Amino acid sequence: MSSTFGTLFKMTTFGESHGPGVGAVVDGCPAGLELSLSAIQAQLDRRRPGQSSLTTPRQEGDQIEILSGLENGKTLGTPIALLVRNHNQRPGDYGAMVNVPRPSHADYTYRMKYGVASQSGGGRASARETLARVAAGSVAEQFIKTVFGVEIVAWVSQVGRVKASFDEVASLTRATVDHEAVRCPDLEAAAAMTAAIKKAATEQDSLGGVVSCICRGVEAGWGEPVFDKLDALLAQAMLSIPAAKGFAIGSGFSCAAMSGSEHNDLFVASGRKLSTKTNYSGGVQGGISNGQAIKFEVAFKPAPTIGKAQKTVDYEGREVLLEGKGRHDPCVLPRAVPVVEAMAGMVLADLALRQAAHSSDLVTPRRQFHP
Amino acid sequence: MSSTFGTLFKMTTFGESHGPGVGAVVDGCPAGLELSLSAIQAQLDRRRPGQSSLTTPRQEGDQIEILSGLENGKTLGTPIALLVRNHNQRPGDYGAMVNVPRPSHADYTYRMKYGVASQSGGGRASARETLARVAAGSVAEQFIKTVFGVEIVAWVSQVGRVKASFDEVASLTRATVDHEAVRCPDLEAAAAMTAAIKKAATEQDSLGGVVSCICRGVEAGWGEPVFDKLDALLAQAMLSIPAAKGFAIGSGFSCAAMSGSEHNDLFVASGRKLSTKTNYSGGVQGGISNGQAIKFEVAFKPAPTIGKAQKTVDYEGREVLLEGKGRHDPCVLPRAVPVVEAMAGMVLADLALRQAAHSSDLVTPRRQFHP
Amino acid sequence: MSSTFGTLFKMTTFGESHGPGVGAVVDGCPAGLELSLSAIQAQLDRRRPGQSSLTTPRQEGDQIEILSGLENGKTLGTPIALLVRNHNQRPGDYGAMVNVPRPSHADYTYRMKYGVASQSGGGRASARETLARVAAGSVAEQFIKTVFGVEIVAWVSQVGRVKASFDEVASLTRATVDHEAVRCPDLEAAAAMTAAIKKAATEQDSLGGVVSCICRGVEAGWGEPVFDKLDALLAQAMLSIPAAKGFAIGSGFSCAAMSGSEHNDLFVASGRKLSTKTNYSGGVQGGISNGQAIKFEVAFKPAPTIGKAQKTVDYEGREVLLEGKGRHDPCVLPRAVPVVEAMAGMVLADLALRQAAHSSDLVTPRRQFHP
Amino acid sequence: MSSTFGTLFKMTTFGESHGPGVGAVVDGCPAGLELSLSAIQAQLDRRRPGQSSLTTPRQEGDQIEILSGLENGKTLGTPIALLVRNHNQRPGDYGAMVNVPRPSHADYTYRMKYGVASQSGGGRASARETLARVAAGSVAEQFIKTVFGVEIVAWVSQVGRVKASFDEVASLTRATVDHEAVRCPDLEAAAAMTAAIKKAATEQDSLGGVVSCICRGVEAGWGEPVFDKLDALLAQAMLSIPAAKGFAIGSGFSCAAMSGSEHNDLFVASGRKLSTKTNYSGGVQGGISNGQAIKFEVAFKPAPTIGKAQKTVDYEGREVLLEGKGRHDPCVLPRAVPVVEAMAGMVLADLALRQAAHSSDLVTPRRQFHP
Repeated sequence: MSSTFGTLFKMTTFGESHGPGVGAVVDGCPAGLELSLSAIQAQLDRRRPGQSSLTTPRQEGDQIEILSGLENGKTLGTPIALLVRNHNQRPGDYGAMVNVPRPSHADYTYRMKYGVASQSGGGRASARETLARVAAGSVAEQFIKTVFGVEIVAWVSQVGRVKASFDEVASLTRATVDHEAVRCPDLEAAAAMTAAIKKAATEQDSLGGVVSCICRGVEAGWGEPVFDKLDALLAQAMLSIPAAKGFAIGSGFSCAAMSGSEHNDLFVASGRKLSTKTNYSGGVQGGISNGQAIKFEVAFKPAPTIGKAQKTVDYEGREVLLEGKGRHDPCVLPRAVPVVEAMAGMVLADLALRQAAHSSDLVTPRRQFHP
Repeated sequence: MSSTFGTLFKMTTFGESHGPGVGAVVDGCPAGLELSLSAIQAQLDRRRPGQSSLTTPRQEGDQIEILSGLENGKTLGTPIALLVRNHNQRPGDYGAMVNVPRPSHADYTYRMKYGVASQSGGGRASARETLARVAAGSVAEQFIKTVFGVEIVAWVSQVGRVKASFDEVASLTRATVDHEAVRCPDLEAAAAMTAAIKKAATEQDSLGGVVSCICRGVEAGWGEPVFDKLDALLAQAMLSIPAAKGFAIGSGFSCAAMSGSEHNDLFVASGRKLSTKTNYSGGVQGGISNGQAIKFEVAFKPAPTIGKAQKTVDYEGREVLLEGKGRHDPCVLPRAVPVVEAMAGMVLADLALRQAAHSSDLVTPRRQFHP
Repeated sequence: MSSTFGTLFKMTTFGESHGPGVGAVVDGCPAGLELSLSAIQAQLDRRRPGQSSLTTPRQEGDQIEILSGLENGKTLGTPIALLVRNHNQRPGDYGAMVNVPRPSHADYTYRMKYGVASQSGGGRASARETLARVAAGSVAEQFIKTVFGVEIVAWVSQVGRVKASFDEVASLTRATVDHEAVRCPDLEAAAAMTAAIKKAATEQDSLGGVVSCICRGVEAGWGEPVFDKLDALLAQAMLSIPAAKGFAIGSGFSCAAMSGSEHNDLFVASGRKLSTKTNYSGGVQGGISNGQAIKFEVAFKPAPTIGKAQKTVDYEGREVLLEGKGRHDPCVLPRAVPVVEAMAGMVLADLALRQAAHSSDLVTPRRQFHP
Repeated sequence: MSSTFGTLFKMTTFGESHGPGVGAVVDGCPAGLELSLSAIQAQLDRRRPGQSSLTTPRQEGDQIEILSGLENGKTLGTPIALLVRNHNQRPGDYGAMVNVPRPSHADYTYRMKYGVASQSGGGRASARETLARVAAGSVAEQFIKTVFGVEIVAWVSQVGRVKASFDEVASLTRATVDHEAVRCPDLEAAAAMTAAIKKAATEQDSLGGVVSCICRGVEAGWGEPVFDKLDALLAQAMLSIPAAKGFAIGSGFSCAAMSGSEHNDLFVASGRKLSTKTNYSGGVQGGISNGQAIKFEVAFKPAPTIGKAQKTVDYEGREVLLEGKGRHDPCVLPRAVPVVEAMAGMVLADLALRQAAHSSDLVTPRRQFHP
C-alpha cells in the first residue's frame, strides 16, 4: 500500500467500501486559510452515486466530518483529518462472487498481492476510495484558488463513440459542465452520450470515455524537473484513479502525427508579457508551467461490473457463468469529473508549495527576468 | 529540482549537457548482483546520437565509468555511482539564441522558475539528461532480469502518420527491434518511417511518434495501490522523459469507445493457473500486475529544435525570425527506445523490492491462495 | 507540519488536544496479521493521564476506534485508521494565557511559524498528540512481535536526582515495570522517585527524568546506512517526542570517557554463533543491528506547565506574573514509557520491512555467511 | 542503503573508501547562489586525516571536483555533483582481517545485512564516507549563510575524561576553534586533551569525546512538527555520523535533574522583541526554532581501530588475537568537527526551504503576530 500522495501538500487516504468509513488526512496545508465545508460537500455530492438517473441508484449520502486542523473555520497549519462514515457495511451483494475473480477487477491481483480475500466489495480498489481524494482535493483546490486564483474545471468529452467538439474552454465553469447530468458542456454531444448510456444500461453493459480538464491561472514556474515534472505528476495522479487507462497533456497522442513546425508553440508578446500563439504544450514546457492554461485528458475504461453474463473461471479454474447482481454504474464518467479535479488540485497545491520553497526570491529575484 | 526517482530502488541523476559530465547514483540495488558494464554501455550506445544516418551526426562517444558500489564485478549493496564525461562543453552553437526563448523548449520556463539563463544548451531539459537514466535503468533491468527473469523490449510503433501494425510482440527482442535503424520491427512500416524522417530532415523539420513497450515475466503482485499503482508510476516515469506528451496502458484511449463486455479480460485456466483471454488491461488490474505481459505506449512530440525559420519573439517581446543552426535530430523516436526501457526498468525494480517487503510471506504465505 | 513517519511501515498522525479527536493512519502493515484491539487499548491506558495518584487527575477515558484496514480481526494490508475522540473540547482552562507565551512551551514558536494563535491548549505540541503514536506504535509492535518475536520494554530510570540502578534488564517485562506507578523496576529507587514527585507536586513544580528502553529479539541486519541507521532513526523518533532533550544508544555519553580497548565489544562464539561479550554498542554497529539487545535512553525535561508563579512577558513585551491554573502533571516520565515503546516499535517495524526488501536472499542468500 | 538525506535540500552520497571515489549529489539548492569552491575545500581539509600530529599520518589530499550544477561560479538550481577521487584503492592493510570481524566495527553487521564481505576497508562504514557529507554540507552552509546569515561553529568539548569549561560561545569562530589542533577553544583543556591523545597513541589505544555545536542566526519558525522537529532531525543527522553514540539539545541529559521552575526559559523583552533569559531549550521549543542560538552536543565513542591486541573470534568462532596494523587515529574528535557542522548545515538548509514553502506569508502574513 502506498496511501500518501504529495511532497509538501500531502494527503493520506484510508478506508474500505464496507468498513466503518473512508477518509483522508491532509498535511501541509498552510495556516490561516478560510476553509469552506460546503465546498467540500459540494464536490462529494458531485462524486456521489445516485445523483442522477444516469448513475447507480444507491443513496450514499456521504456527509463530511472534519476531525482536526480547523479552528473558527480557519486552518491551523496542522493535519486536516476528513472522515465520511459508510452506511452500508454489509458486503452481501458481492458474497456470491468470492470464489470468482471478477474480470478486469482487482479481485485477483489483490488476492495475489495481499494473500487475503476481502469480503468487502473491492476494498481499496473500490470506487468509494475516490471519495477521500475528492474531500482532500477540495482542500487543495481551495488553497490554490484563494492564494493564486487557480481554477480547475473538468468535463466529459467522450462517452463510448460519442465525442464532444467543444473548443470554448476558456470560460467553462462547473455550473456549465453540470448543466447536463452527463457533465458534457457540448449539449448536442451530451444528448447523444445520455442516449448511449441509457442503451448500455438496458443491455446491462457499460461504457468508457474521456474526461478533459483545464487549469486556469497557474503562473509560470510550477513543476520540479526532472522526475516531478508537472505533467509527470499529473500523469501519476490521473493513472492512480480507478479505471484510468491513459493520460495526455496538450496535444497528447495527436502530436505523433504532427511536424515540429506545426506543433511548436510560437511566442507572442503583449507589451513585455509573453504568451504562446497555440497551446499544443498544454501549458507545460520542460515539466514546468508556462503561464498558459494547463490542459489534459484522461481515458477511463468501461466499468468492469456489468449485468451481462460472462464466461470466466473461478480460483480453482472451473468454468463459471458470472452474472452481476450488485448495483452498478453503466458509465462512471460523470462521477469521475470531480475526482479528476481533486487530483489536479493536489498536484498543483503541492507544486505551488515546492515552488514557494525553491523559487528563491531568496537568492535571486527570479522575476527580474520577466519582460 | 527533483532529481531522485524511486522509493527503495532509487536513482539520483545530475548533469547539464555542457557541464563536465552527466551521471546517476543508483541506491538500493541489492548486494551480490553480477553487473555487466558492457550491457550498460550497449544501452548507452543505443541512446547515443550519431548512431545512424537517421540521427544527428554528433559523435558523443559516451563512455560509462563506475565510481562506487562494485567490487570484483559484483554489487556491494551500496550506492552505484555512474559517470559519463561530456566532451563538448562549449555552448557556442546555442549562443545566439540566448535572448530568444526557443518555442516549445524549456528555455522560457526554466528562466521563469530558476531566474537564471543558463548558456548550457538546455541544461537539465536537454535530451542529454536521459543518458543518466539509461545507465541507471540498465542496472535496474539487470537486477530484475537476473532475479525474476523480467524482459523489457520497446520499439517505435509510429512516426508521423506511419503506424506499425505489429501484433507479434510475444517474441520480440531488442535484436529484432534493432534490425532497422528506425527501431520498428514492422519492416514495411519501418521503410515508410525512414522515408518520412529523411523527408522531414530535408525540409529542416521534425516528426513525432509513439514508442510501444512490453515487459514480460512480471509476476502477479507488483504495484502499490492506491497512489503508487504500477501503471501510475509508469505514467509518471514516461511523462518525465523529455518530449513525452501521452501515456496509455493496455487498451489506452481506445478503451473509451468500447463496452464493458468487450473490454473485460475474461479469465481462463490452464490447470489451476489463471490467465486472461485478452489483455486490454495491459497486465495491470487495480494498479497491480496480474502476471500477463505489461504493455504500454508513450507519445513523443516532434522535436522542437528545427532548422525551418520560425516567427517568434525575444524576451523583450520583439519579433524575431528564429532559424536553428545547431545540430538536431529530425526524429528522436529511435533514440527514445532505450530511455523508455530504462524508465520501465526503474519502476519495476522498485516495485519488485517493495513487494518483497510487503508481500508478507512473513505473515501469511500469499501464494496459498494461488490455484 | 510533517506528520508522517516511516518509509514502508508508516504512520500519519492528526489531531489537536481540543478538536474533535486525535488519531493515526498506519500504512504498510502487512496483510493477515491478527490485531489485538485490547493490546492497543492497554498501551493507551498506560499513556492516559489520571491513571495513578502521580499523574494529573483528568480522566480522558481514551477509547480506540478502528475505521479501516481490518476484517474479522485481521489486517487487510490496507491503511489502518485509528481514532480517539476528545471529550473535553473547551479550551477554557487555557484562555487566560492566550496573550502570554508560556515559557518553554511551543506557544511562541507555533505562533511565529504558523501565524495563528490556536486557542486549543497547545495544539499539536500538546502531549495528547502522543496518543496517536501509542495507538499506531502498538500496531507496529504487534507486527514485529508476531513475525519476529521482538519485545520492547521501557521503564523510568531516573526522576530528578534519583537514578535507578537496575542491571537485570534481560528479563524485564511490562508487568514488572508497572509494579510501581512510577514505572521504575528498581523498587528502592521507585520509592524515592515517588516521594520526589509528590514533593514537586506540593511545590507546584515539576521534575524531569530519563526513560530507558530495551528491544530484545531483533535479528542482525536491520538498519539502513548511511542516513537511516537504526540508531539514527531511533534518535529522530525519540527527539520527536514532546519534552525529549537527549538520546543515547548503548554507552551513550559515557563513551566519551572510555578508551577503545575498554569500549570495544569483543566477539565470543557459542558454537558457530557469534555474540559480543559486552554491549557498549547497544546492539547496533555501523547503524545495523548485530543481534544483541538494543538499548537506549531518552532524557525528558521537567514539564514546563507548573503552578508556581513565573515572571515572564506577554507578546507585547509587558511583564506578567504567570500562574498556571490548568491541570498538569508534576512528572510525565511514567506516561512517557508507552510513547517510547511505540516510537521504537515504529522504527523497528519499518526497518524490518526495509530489510525484507533489500536483504535479497533474492540475489545472494545472505545467511550463507553466517558461521 | 539509504543514502539520501533531506526533503527539499537533499544530498545523496556514494563511495567506498577503496573504490574509485567518494562524492555527493546536492539537489534542491536554489539557483543564483555564488558558490565558493575554496570554502568547500577548506572544510574538506579540516576533515582530512594527516592534518596534524594528532591524526593519522595518511595524506589523502582530497581534492574536490564539481561535475554539474554550476555555471560561472553560480548555482543553476540543478543538482550539484561533487566528487573526490580516492588515491589509495588497495585494501592491502586490511587484508588479514577479512576472516575476523573487528570488534565494534561494522564488519559483522554489514556481512549479516548484505551477505558480502567487502575487501574495501569498511566500505560505506568507513570514516571516509563523511568526506561526501562535508562537501555537501558546505554547500548547505553557504546557502544559509548567504541568505539568512546563519553561522555554524562546532568544537571539541570533551576528550576522554578532560572536559572543556567554555561558556563564551556567543563569539566563537572557526578560527578560534582551530587555534589548537585538538579544536578545543578552552586552551587549558586543549593542552590536557592533547596530552591525553598522545598518551593513548603511545598505548596503541584510542579516546572518545564530545563535540559541541552552536548555530547562530536561525530565525524563529524553522522545524516541522511533529516528526521532523528541528531537534529530531538534528538527532538523526548526528547519530548517522560514524561512531556517534549520543545527542543532546540544550540542557540535554542534565535536564533530568532539574525542576520545571529552574529549567523553564522565561521570556524577556527588548522593546517588542522577545527573547529568553536562559537557553536550556537550546534554541528549539516544540521542535521549532525560537530565534535563540541552537546548541547541541554529540558524543563519539573511542575509535574501535586500535593497535592493542584484542582477544576476539573469527567468523568460524575460533579464538584469535587481533592486532591492528593499519593506520589509525587515536582520537577522531578534531576531525569530527567539520562533519558535525556539515550535518547541521544540511538540516538547517532543508528546514529553511520547508519553512519558505509553508510559512505562507501566502495566506496570512505570519509576522503580523510578532510584537
